[in-house]
Amino acid sequence: MTETRDTDKASEQTGERTGERITEAESVITAEQFLKHWQGHRLLSRRMIEAFPDDQLFTFSIGGMRTFGQLAGEMLVMAGPSLQGVVTGEWKEYEKPRPTTKRELLEAWDAETQRIDELWPMIPAGRFQEKDVAFGQWPGTMSWLLRYILENEVHHRGQGYVYLRALDIEPPAFWDRPE
Amino acid sequence: MTETRDTDKASEQTGERTGERITEAESVITAEQFLKHWQGHRLLSRRMIEAFPDDQLFTFSIGGMRTFGQLAGEMLVMAGPSLQGVVTGEWKEYEKPRPTTKRELLEAWDAETQRIDELWPMIPAGRFQEKDVAFGQWPGTMSWLLRYILENEVHHRGQGYVYLRALDIEPPAFWDRPE
Repeated sequence: MTETRDTDKASEQTGERTGERITEAESVITAEQFLKHWQGHRLLSRRMIEAFPDDQLFTFSIGGMRTFGQLAGEMLVMAGPSLQGVVTGEWKEYEKPRPTTKRELLEAWDAETQRIDELWPMIPAGRFQEKDVAFGQWPGTMSWLLRYILENEVHHRGQGYVYLRALDIEPPAFWDRPE
Repeated sequence: MTETRDTDKASEQTGERTGERITEAESVITAEQFLKHWQGHRLLSRRMIEAFPDDQLFTFSIGGMRTFGQLAGEMLVMAGPSLQGVVTGEWKEYEKPRPTTKRELLEAWDAETQRIDELWPMIPAGRFQEKDVAFGQWPGTMSWLLRYILENEVHHRGQGYVYLRALDIEPPAFWDRPE
């Protein structure tokens, strides 16, 4: 039997008793969950930026890769402008210069965090499953685009973990973030 | 205006014309999309395993971290058993010994790929939003658990990219995978 924390409610919701199975269209992640989850990842990425010594953030790298400051700069400029495009159907690049110091990066990060919270409820109904060409270059559903942005961040942030370990610095825990 | 590839259909689906906004419960990712997306990531992880030289997969690391063979072993043993728990509510650890060679790892990977495809349609209706305690240790919704497994893979695979770059090997492209 299923061990649930919320037994009665959960048993009523599940199809186990009737043998009913998921439909292809059933939601794995709702809009509310995605926003909270995305911002949780962005909070962890912010902790990563903070964990780098000022003098290593834009200088240290391995194997000819970009510095973590550059990778975090990419995460920064992808997030807000992409969501703006999801909301409006207009694709505009990040307008400010990319940050070149830890302080600038953290300030810009916080501004985009607020922008994302403000934009999210403005997404038109049905938009997640709609196709569009992000920035005139990347065709796909808005569901795909949002996943891409989030996972690109997880991917590059994972690289930052190796940099920190190579610098003998303990990174913040991957699992320690809002759901 | 929105540039859609599928104009008529998409315009009908979006709430832009009426000003209708997303609801919190609206699906960002459907069951069908999640499976395809997850298996797309697992295919990229498989390419990463293949890209490592046999003699580096279980030996090379940076900063005292686990080898990519060990990290991929973790991905392997998390995926199928977790999905089995999502389907059945019973949590059983991966039963076979963890692979210790590239060939064993790839064979085990392919077996789990098939197992995931077989198990996925058996998920009970309503199960994604149900809470459970995975393996008696990790409480959360099954939506959260599935995201955690996928993103843990993206996170550690990103670390493998640094290892490959440090070994002067071009990794497979992050973006080149099924949606």
